[in-house]
Amino acid sequence: MRRMSLHSWLSERGKRISFPHGGIVTQTAEARGKPINATIGIALDEEGVPLHLPSLMRLVNLPLEEVLPYASTHGIESLRNEWLRHMRLKNPSLPASVSTPVVTAGITHGLSACACLFTDPGDAVYIFSPYWGNYRQTFEKLWGATLHAIPLFHEGRMDVESLCTAIQHSSSTHKVLLLNFPNNPTGYTAVEYESLCASLSDEAERGSTLTVLCDDAYFGLTYDDALPQESLFARLANLHERVLAVKIDGATKEEYAWGLRVGFLTFGGKATTKEMYTDLEDRVAGFVRGDVSNCSQLSQHLVLRTLRSSTYAREKQRNKELLRKRFHRSQDILVQGRFARFCTLLPCNSGYFLCLQLHHLDAEAVRRHLLEQYDTGIVALGQDKVRIAFSSVPTEQLPLLYDNLHKTFCDLSS
Amino acid sequence: MRRMSLHSWLSERGKRISFPHGGIVTQTAEARGKPINATIGIALDEEGVPLHLPSLMRLVNLPLEEVLPYASTHGIESLRNEWLRHMRLKNPSLPASVSTPVVTAGITHGLSACACLFTDPGDAVYIFSPYWGNYRQTFEKLWGATLHAIPLFHEGRMDVESLCTAIQHSSSTHKVLLLNFPNNPTGYTAVEYESLCASLSDEAERGSTLTVLCDDAYFGLTYDDALPQESLFARLANLHERVLAVKIDGATKEEYAWGLRVGFLTFGGKATTKEMYTDLEDRVAGFVRGDVSNCSQLSQHLVLRTLRSSTYAREKQRNKELLRKRFHRSQDILVQGRFARFCTLLPCNSGYFLCLQLHHLDAEAVRRHLLEQYDTGIVALGQDKVRIAFSSVPTEQLPLLYDNLHKTFCDLSS
Repeated sequence: MRRMSLHSWLSERGKRISFPHGGIVTQTAEARGKPINATIGIALDEEGVPLHLPSLMRLVNLPLEEVLPYASTHGIESLRNEWLRHMRLKNPSLPASVSTPVVTAGITHGLSACACLFTDPGDAVYIFSPYWGNYRQTFEKLWGATLHAIPLFHEGRMDVESLCTAIQHSSSTHKVLLLNFPNNPTGYTAVEYESLCASLSDEAERGSTLTVLCDDAYFGLTYDDALPQESLFARLANLHERVLAVKIDGATKEEYAWGLRVGFLTFGGKATTKEMYTDLEDRVAGFVRGDVSNCSQLSQHLVLRTLRSSTYAREKQRNKELLRKRFHRSQDILVQGRFARFCTLLPCNSGYFLCLQLHHLDAEAVRRHLLEQYDTGIVALGQDKVRIAFSSVPTEQLPLLYDNLHKTFCDLSS
Repeated sequence: MRRMSLHSWLSERGKRISFPHGGIVTQTAEARGKPINATIGIALDEEGVPLHLPSLMRLVNLPLEEVLPYASTHGIESLRNEWLRHMRLKNPSLPASVSTPVVTAGITHGLSACACLFTDPGDAVYIFSPYWGNYRQTFEKLWGATLHAIPLFHEGRMDVESLCTAIQHSSSTHKVLLLNFPNNPTGYTAVEYESLCASLSDEAERGSTLTVLCDDAYFGLTYDDALPQESLFARLANLHERVLAVKIDGATKEEYAWGLRVGFLTFGGKATTKEMYTDLEDRVAGFVRGDVSNCSQLSQHLVLRTLRSSTYAREKQRNKELLRKRFHRSQDILVQGRFARFCTLLPCNSGYFLCLQLHHLDAEAVRRHLLEQYDTGIVALGQDKVRIAFSSVPTEQLPLLYDNLHKTFCDLSS
């Protein structure tokens, strides 16, 4: 097997970004634990404990060391290992060799790191539509890449063929894909993983190098036992020597901790060596160092302690069951014939959201009417889709929500 | 007075980055408080409270709402206003019209935002040396700008003339400066603000547009009452219609909250209108949205509650007095004749650090010998300087630290 160089995947930016070994961070690490240590860029009191404001510390039930000092750039070692351990539990087919997750300041930050390290200005990023609108802000506005969107559905199924045709026709031999299952905004998790993987493998076999970014923000929130329960990343990480898979995930949705901003980046590739993983981890840490220095110590420890709590699994399951109930209630209502005239429910089996494809009404008009006449908020996506976050609506409100939506459809159609 | 356009200051990237008004963020804001709200991209329980893991929430003494939901992209409104109120208290000469601070994920994140919004690849950023090494990671590696360093000291004073000569000779009419007082690594706060401001004003008068970035990370930690107690930003914000001043500061050092990652970006300019400030705030928020989505809700509320604590000022003063004591103890020792043969203490009157300019010994050799022979950690900067963080060394250890350093000098010189 020919040894691949990381440079096949990295952008020009990515090639120049590395972890500043030998710099202050490394020198500080070398001095750790020494009796006299004047390397530390924080302030310690006369006992060597972080100097602090008691007004702040009394708001948190954690030791000072888990709140105030800087976290290491790659993230807290024990959290990185714990996250990987959970990833393996949730993805039994994950290959033995993947990188150790590097901590980012939330999932978007992981996406931003990927945009920086794997795309240069003008590069194409292939993606299914509809997609989370903020991808444009990250990939296009901040980092100058161009999203090439392929409609996700063809006859109610993931359109693997159109995606792969688009990739095949791109002029560059290095291709970047961004996949997001469970999908925001549709709430769809593909059942067609096999055909997607086969097609990507064929593309790699034809000589392309592929970077496949898996936005796993909503991982685990699948409501149908027939669906793949593992991440697409688990398969891509062992697919082909010219495929580098990147898992972008975090505590944001998986641990119900949106505001804490804890994300992770993990790499997997069939021919990727331990040295290459370390190199990739260092480049992500180099990005983190240059962009935010490091990620919240407090948030990382909160997530770590939660993952290790004896009641963690039970608490999480309880939340998921509630979301599952709302998902099914929504489905039951929206398949009713009275909606068929106005909209189609896009395939949906997971996540926080569902999407309605409007047949003739304007999405913004629907949103505004619903808001103004029925005190009900939904999101308009483009001209012909609306997104409904059943995740944030109490179950007993769902019938009224959809009744109001139906009334709006009728009002605007009359 | 001719009205300036923001485009005179913004990079090409900065011109294309704006806040995605009308997108999901805005639609969600419009639905806030509505009886039925299916716009929210988090999960709420049947009572409308964020769905959570009790294992996490029991670690924090704050209401759920101050921990788990996403914070608004610009930052929590009350925190932004409170930070500005404190800024005015600490800088009485701040002009009436400055922007409202926008929250960033720490001070480095504010620097990264500035590198993105105000420089394009290849652009020069003028800076005094020595400087914090991570500027290279942020400005050069991530965003492609080029740092042009001018030695900070000439005959023991800030070398305003050389800085301004360098700026004058740059080919572009738009010039970006990055200034950092109290300075990392020297611990110097300039007393020559007047001459610097006069020179920058002259440069603007000759037709240049200037963006002056003030890294105020160590603001407030001045140990000499004769020093300027206000930020340079306060003067620059009212200097000249072609000067845009940017204050990059945060809770990191000012509130002894390094690991929480709360920073702020504030703009000030003599001819900058309210609309221009709003535009700038939106562009920073557009950067935040694309890079990290939003900053930690929990960290922001911890800082807000701390700023409002009745004992806040007293707690902070106590910490500063401790650092002041260590500063003076260090000065007293290092002016002793026995050091003169080996090094010169660079001008120092503030901050966390002091710097020694080595006369003939190699900085890395000194660092390594001190670490290995005397269990004492310091930082080597380039070949001929070492940085000592007196902020993190208990006062009673300082004599031993400097004794060990002196022994190292002797060992390596023999």
